Amino acid sequence: MASVKSISNKKLGRRPGGEDTRAKIVTAAQTQFAAEGYGHASLRQIGSLAEVDPALIIHYFGTKQRLFAEAMLPLFEGPKLLPAALEGSKNGIGLRLAELFVKMTSQPSAQKLMLGLFRSASSEERAAEMIRSFIQTGIIDRVEKFLPGPNKKLQANILGGQMVGIFITRYVLKVEPIANVTAEELIAYLAPRLQAHFE
Amino acid sequence: MASVKSISNKKLGRRPGGEDTRAKIVTAAQTQFAAEGYGHASLRQIGSLAEVDPALIIHYFGTKQRLFAEAMLPLFEGPKLLPAALEGSKNGIGLRLAELFVKMTSQPSAQKLMLGLFRSASSEERAAEMIRSFIQTGIIDRVEKFLPGPNKKLQANILGGQMVGIFITRYVLKVEPIANVTAEELIAYLAPRLQAHFE
Repeated sequence: MASVKSISNKKLGRRPGGEDTRAKIVTAAQTQFAAEGYGHASLRQIGSLAEVDPALIIHYFGTKQRLFAEAMLPLFEGPKLLPAALEGSKNGIGLRLAELFVKMTSQPSAQKLMLGLFRSASSEERAAEMIRSFIQTGIIDRVEKFLPGPNKKLQANILGGQMVGIFITRYVLKVEPIANVTAEELIAYLAPRLQAHFE
Repeated sequence: MASVKSISNKKLGRRPGGEDTRAKIVTAAQTQFAAEGYGHASLRQIGSLAEVDPALIIHYFGTKQRLFAEAMLPLFEGPKLLPAALEGSKNGIGLRLAELFVKMTSQPSAQKLMLGLFRSASSEERAAEMIRSFIQTGIIDRVEKFLPGPNKKLQANILGGQMVGIFITRYVLKVEPIANVTAEELIAYLAPRLQAHFE
């Protein structure tokens, strides 16, 4: 167990092996937030999972809220792949979006983060704010210029909302049959529905 | 305040004015579950809001879980209107579904129940199960026979999932701009997206 004493006279997070410990804490936090939600996850549990003293978590991250923000950060990488899927032949947009969605959401690490966000959003306004930001700057701002029609932002928002719903019913609520269809089947059925937004 | 003593020698819930008290408890429970989620709502708070002794709630409903199930029950009335929207001219299905969705979800009483379900689903498996049942028997089972294509259940599920996502982004997460567009605007943009499922 890394102890707080061993770093007490060093600079914040700047001891040998500090980056490894930091990464271990972030991974443990992602697991706990997904399992318990923000409200029920405790620094003690996270510390126990990362095999560090909870005080070391405070040393590195300051507060549970800042640990949460940092733990969720990798999620914002996914939507950066949207422009590549949106550019190119118009007829293939629906398929490329469906493939990107399934590719992103079928990664266990991304599912863990999304679950953590949704399990936290009901009680923690900061988590709800992160999902809003994910949809607004991650999705709507990137998609809107590719859409036809007068209110592109609303259309992009409807598309983003629909994707959120597909994610929740497949991975959070586990509704049948969508929870158990193959990636290929989901892509085949999702692609034309997504394509319709761009016609 | 109705007291437990006043009913101690009567049959379960069978005293004069019992139905009024029961209804008051259910309304208070709906408000508390929406505000706090299942996990954080307490019978003491619900009793205080309904102006009854918490013991009277146990007398009428047995457990918090059964009170929750009964409080959420009115929600299952909404999807019964689906067949009427699905029958009739094929070209108008998208518009009729969009109108029904907006009509149902803009009622404050329905919003309260949906919020209660979503706030509870992250910690309470019974709440997640009710949402699954709402989507499966409420929506998928009613919609599938109207859809084209080989896997009607999956298509109905995708449609249901999309509607769940629109609800969550508009009313739970309050994403902009969808949280603040008028009913008319939402219907206008939603109708062609829903229609696409039936082409």
